[in-house]
Amino acid sequence: MNRTTPAGTPLGDAFHVFDTTLRDGAQREGITYSVADKLAVARLLDEVGVGFIEGGWPGALPKDTEFFARAREEKFTHAALVAFGSTRRAGTTADQDPQVRALLDSQAPVVTLVAKSDRRHIERALRTDVTEACAMVRDTVAFLTSEGRRVFLDAEHFFDGYAYDPDTALNVLTAAVEAGADVAVLCDTNGGQLPLKLADTVGEVIARTGFRVGIHCQDDTGCAVANSVAAVQAGATHVQCTANGYGERAGNADLFAVVGNLVTKLGMPVIPAASVPELSRVSHALAEIANIAPDTHQAYVGSSAFAHKAGLHASAIKVDPLLYNHIDPSVVGNDMRVLVTEMAGRASLELKGRELGVDLAGQPAALTASVRKVKELEARGWSFEAADASLELLLRKEVAAATDGTDATVDAPPFRLESYRVILDHGMDGEIVSEATVKVHVADQRVIATAEGNGPVHALDAALRKALAPHLPWLTAVRLSDYKVRILPGAAGTDAVTRVLVESSDHEREWTTVGVHGNIVEASWLALCDALVHKAMRVAQPVTSVSP
Amino acid sequence: MNRTTPAGTPLGDAFHVFDTTLRDGAQREGITYSVADKLAVARLLDEVGVGFIEGGWPGALPKDTEFFARAREEKFTHAALVAFGSTRRAGTTADQDPQVRALLDSQAPVVTLVAKSDRRHIERALRTDVTEACAMVRDTVAFLTSEGRRVFLDAEHFFDGYAYDPDTALNVLTAAVEAGADVAVLCDTNGGQLPLKLADTVGEVIARTGFRVGIHCQDDTGCAVANSVAAVQAGATHVQCTANGYGERAGNADLFAVVGNLVTKLGMPVIPAASVPELSRVSHALAEIANIAPDTHQAYVGSSAFAHKAGLHASAIKVDPLLYNHIDPSVVGNDMRVLVTEMAGRASLELKGRELGVDLAGQPAALTASVRKVKELEARGWSFEAADASLELLLRKEVAAATDGTDATVDAPPFRLESYRVILDHGMDGEIVSEATVKVHVADQRVIATAEGNGPVHALDAALRKALAPHLPWLTAVRLSDYKVRILPGAAGTDAVTRVLVESSDHEREWTTVGVHGNIVEASWLALCDALVHKAMRVAQPVTSVSP
Repeated sequence: MNRTTPAGTPLGDAFHVFDTTLRDGAQREGITYSVADKLAVARLLDEVGVGFIEGGWPGALPKDTEFFARAREEKFTHAALVAFGSTRRAGTTADQDPQVRALLDSQAPVVTLVAKSDRRHIERALRTDVTEACAMVRDTVAFLTSEGRRVFLDAEHFFDGYAYDPDTALNVLTAAVEAGADVAVLCDTNGGQLPLKLADTVGEVIARTGFRVGIHCQDDTGCAVANSVAAVQAGATHVQCTANGYGERAGNADLFAVVGNLVTKLGMPVIPAASVPELSRVSHALAEIANIAPDTHQAYVGSSAFAHKAGLHASAIKVDPLLYNHIDPSVVGNDMRVLVTEMAGRASLELKGRELGVDLAGQPAALTASVRKVKELEARGWSFEAADASLELLLRKEVAAATDGTDATVDAPPFRLESYRVILDHGMDGEIVSEATVKVHVADQRVIATAEGNGPVHALDAALRKALAPHLPWLTAVRLSDYKVRILPGAAGTDAVTRVLVESSDHEREWTTVGVHGNIVEASWLALCDALVHKAMRVAQPVTSVSP
Repeated sequence: MNRTTPAGTPLGDAFHVFDTTLRDGAQREGITYSVADKLAVARLLDEVGVGFIEGGWPGALPKDTEFFARAREEKFTHAALVAFGSTRRAGTTADQDPQVRALLDSQAPVVTLVAKSDRRHIERALRTDVTEACAMVRDTVAFLTSEGRRVFLDAEHFFDGYAYDPDTALNVLTAAVEAGADVAVLCDTNGGQLPLKLADTVGEVIARTGFRVGIHCQDDTGCAVANSVAAVQAGATHVQCTANGYGERAGNADLFAVVGNLVTKLGMPVIPAASVPELSRVSHALAEIANIAPDTHQAYVGSSAFAHKAGLHASAIKVDPLLYNHIDPSVVGNDMRVLVTEMAGRASLELKGRELGVDLAGQPAALTASVRKVKELEARGWSFEAADASLELLLRKEVAAATDGTDATVDAPPFRLESYRVILDHGMDGEIVSEATVKVHVADQRVIATAEGNGPVHALDAALRKALAPHLPWLTAVRLSDYKVRILPGAAGTDAVTRVLVESSDHEREWTTVGVHGNIVEASWLALCDALVHKAMRVAQPVTSVSP
């Protein structure tokens, strides 16, 4: 077996982007990857160009053992697979420790060994002494390298340990490197570090040992990304991260922010140039696999990361977007979004239209009408800042009206409501039944359908689908992925106006629509209808985009 | 008017924790505070001991003007109110600029003035020259200080500006300080900075000017918290944050992480000692008001911030939790256990009970039962953080049960539901009718009443009132003053569990109740009932309070 290096990454072996989403990231509450999930994650990580993918702990977790067996069949372009495990137990030899043998059996070309480097942990958790702890490290590293594996050492609780007893911490690193480990990874396992001090420590360790040093940060002080970058600036050439910062407690350093910073701020080509514009897409895809709603405010890759609300800036943004964004969003595959709010005017709506593929630049009448319509609706409680799909429908209608043209999908929606009725019954037994009946016209037919649901909106959605599905085959792929309700401030009690946001998805994309009404069920109905009309429009007329 | 200093905070004026949740935080997509929300936020921020609360931009936003008018009536213990605004326009005088006059009219004792300090912004966005830009700063600061206001200068885009043209950036600061501004706040408006460089710049500016320097960071590199802390380490004595990092794009520096780091890592008592254990509770309450699901993985205050999943550590954690947590979670009012919220600890529930007039101190059995009940309900999506009235009812029931005693109002509520039915009709004419029928038992009678409303909940509320009013004369004084709906994350689409918060008021007070159910109407019903039961209890037995 070769000492695999990530030859597919621009800096080759000189700098390691080491991803541990599948091992440390899986410690996050709520994440449970199947083996198929893990393979899908690994492929995406390879696509984005990380050098190393730590796939799990073979031997300790059966799912991880299976992952390595199946991942061997994969052809990765950039990444080498890494197995994680611990050093041999006290009082045995490395070659006879079943856990160490499982690392070999995984056939991963690289092994990360975790070892305690804080004397208090060695004595109180491991219940042994420093001499034996170092021997465990030395033996295990020597055995694995003799078997052709490349070994990285994860020095657990390094920063606390180094502060408490630097000699022990350094002895553990030395034992590993002298036995053949390539990288001494300093781990802020508790996540308690701050960047200035951490950078000093990293620099000091490099100066005292001359070892190749890596960094692994947790986010307990909210500084994992900053700490990772500061460590690189202090000389670390190997950085461990997880996708979207998934991990135990407050999480790990976020791969996308760390790579974003190294590439765009420090000019270090740590992933292939062609992968940089894939960062946003891959981040969202990985969130999808983890079944965690993407953090819309995530640095670099969040859908709001370049969203501007302030009317203060909107006109200036048109003059020069780079005055208001720290980078060009397209560099990381993201987009600038202008949020259409009460504070916004013509300039931002024109910008927004361009983003949505509706060119208002040459159509002053349509733009004027659109601004008036948006303002009028906003005064009644509508909000388009999170409902691009509804805004797009509105703009298309105004453009069609202003040009005396027609927009078939907008002007002739796929169905028309005649009436609906919803009945909620809380019986004497405490049982609650929600039932909805809709009467709609679709494909030149009048259809009546009744369905039950968990609540009024769910029942209405179910009845509508029942009525339409036989006539609109694409409907089966569409599902409601999120539903948000906001009672608008200012109005009193249940008299208030209700704003509903509905997020829909098919297998390809997500889109959000809005409905506002005094009646929450009607507001939901409006948003549901927009969602389906928008989908019908995309079916009839695949995405167009207006070049900037 | 006095030059108000935050005398209520431990370091007095020597260090400023400056919160801008209500101004810059409100730029976050999806946040729309009502004036009542803003007042509630300000009270919570004062509770947690910040020195300054930036309340908004009076004059520019009518809601903010009203906020300052109403906030004047509030008695804050720690915080001074701050109005935000910009310098006078080019070509006018400060005293004649209506926007500057609105700052005076707000009667806020402190004003933050924003000024451009990047020459490119001055020339391209402001379309003026550096001389006039400095004059605008100087005039406005001088005018406001002459009117007795304390002035802080927000130097927008300072770091980019200083890198591009340091002289211009420093000239803007100098103009402000020479005219009487107390603090020159260096703003990383684009959020593009990294901590090592930022700390160097802050140190350099202080060395070159001798000015009192503040810091304002955005999170576009994922480093806002780290940058803020690094700036303090470099000599800044004023730090601007927002609750939970709310803000435009990737957000601002999170107040709770910044304060957590300053207090626990750097040993700086920047908020009162008694407020530190309130950080977690206040963070969650502020999320509730913003109607944003709390980030469970948020540093220090997230419900998972000290949650351990790793089997590797589980037994060792039992030996010594501090080996695995970067701080003792209770210091910031958080907890190591996964499903235990800050509210469900014995000590805090006892304290909370005392606050609500329910003495649990001498009743260990009732306290145990209450903790169990709260945990059980919270696991099903209930939240009592913002629903004191429902919590009080719960505690009274548990006390009555544990003592085999009775609490007349709790055990014998003023009415009992037999059944209800709600019908919503969207007719062919587009007219929507919501009608509810309730069958209830009140004052030994069975009453059936039907009423219409704007929506299902309103109709139900109207029918209930119609049935009860003849028997419960106090009911006419009670009205619903606010109604909030949250679809709980994790569940898909309209299948999700719904949490409803109902705020009620009579002529004397306001109280909030909560209901949770898969069906939004039933969740609302539960909260409505609690609201009336709570009022009935107060009528039967006017407020008792347990002395501390």
